[in-house]
Amino acid sequence: MHKFLERSEKYYFHYPFPVTIVGAIHDGRSNFMAAAWHMQLSFDPPLYAVSISPKRYTNEIIRESGAFSLNFLQFDDYKLAGLVGRTSGRQCYKEEVFDIKYDAGVKLNVPVLKSAICCYECKVVDRRAYGDHVLYVGEILGIHYDSDYYKDGISPDMLLYAGNDMYTHAEGALAIFGKTEVEDFLKSKKDTK
Amino acid sequence: MHKFLERSEKYYFHYPFPVTIVGAIHDGRSNFMAAAWHMQLSFDPPLYAVSISPKRYTNEIIRESGAFSLNFLQFDDYKLAGLVGRTSGRQCYKEEVFDIKYDAGVKLNVPVLKSAICCYECKVVDRRAYGDHVLYVGEILGIHYDSDYYKDGISPDMLLYAGNDMYTHAEGALAIFGKTEVEDFLKSKKDTK
Repeated sequence: MHKFLERSEKYYFHYPFPVTIVGAIHDGRSNFMAAAWHMQLSFDPPLYAVSISPKRYTNEIIRESGAFSLNFLQFDDYKLAGLVGRTSGRQCYKEEVFDIKYDAGVKLNVPVLKSAICCYECKVVDRRAYGDHVLYVGEILGIHYDSDYYKDGISPDMLLYAGNDMYTHAEGALAIFGKTEVEDFLKSKKDTK
Repeated sequence: MHKFLERSEKYYFHYPFPVTIVGAIHDGRSNFMAAAWHMQLSFDPPLYAVSISPKRYTNEIIRESGAFSLNFLQFDDYKLAGLVGRTSGRQCYKEEVFDIKYDAGVKLNVPVLKSAICCYECKVVDRRAYGDHVLYVGEILGIHYDSDYYKDGISPDMLLYAGNDMYTHAEGALAIFGKTEVEDFLKSKKDTK
């Protein structure tokens, strides 16, 4: 690598990342935004984090509702990510303008997108400012998923955000390298000594 | 979506995620592990988080060193992710066994992998237990990247982890949907009213 930066106003070298549509409901009104800053934190209890700018309307909504949903999409639905990502719930009622269909959560008052391949219902258990964003930590109280979509638990074409308004997807499982392969490697190394 | 779980011991529905090789150096000795639980937290200051099991040797090392590197790879290097991910620095000296080549960081005493397409040098600014993992928050003090690799800032084949020891990659930029496309959508919707 021959380039080095001490500072970069924006940095996207770690993309692509899965897109998640963050949904929340407050006072009977839904709101949705797209996020690429999110991650799993823990298996037990199941915790998942998403980072949201304090300027976003979603930030206000989740502060009130104390709950949010994370909805993962197929590649074909990239327009939805762009539409909810590039507009604000302060200016338009996204559910109506973008004709967004959802079911009510089973465990929480959050929207479960009908077009999602997977949705985590999350109850806020921590909220913490880090730099210019706020990290929301949610305990996953319910998991919805489309068992026809996942092949052996692997997503064949999850919608990924590549940066700069570009979308892409992965092609499913291309290579396997687990415990057996690692043991074979270590054995072959030993044999050649 | 027709499946619902209240609890799942493990859950991978949000994969694939970029693989990052977490590197650290303590007492002149390097260590590396693979992680798929990581995310950007902030642009200004540039903050990035990675979640590590307290059982991992890397957890001990980073507690001592107060710094780590995050190294992103091309798909072709998936074996390295499997090798450092499925072994422990307590049992073997990975740098030697897996013949890992790196440069010293410019700003911090962290390893910058020679095979990486991008590396963030991170200084630990927060450390917080969430469930069964520890979240490390790093301030990025240096960014290394291969400008021949990224096309218009987009990664053409970043190594992604699909779960269950499976690896995949994205195909670069497949679709664009930004401000212009959103405005066109909103205009067309208005015109049809």
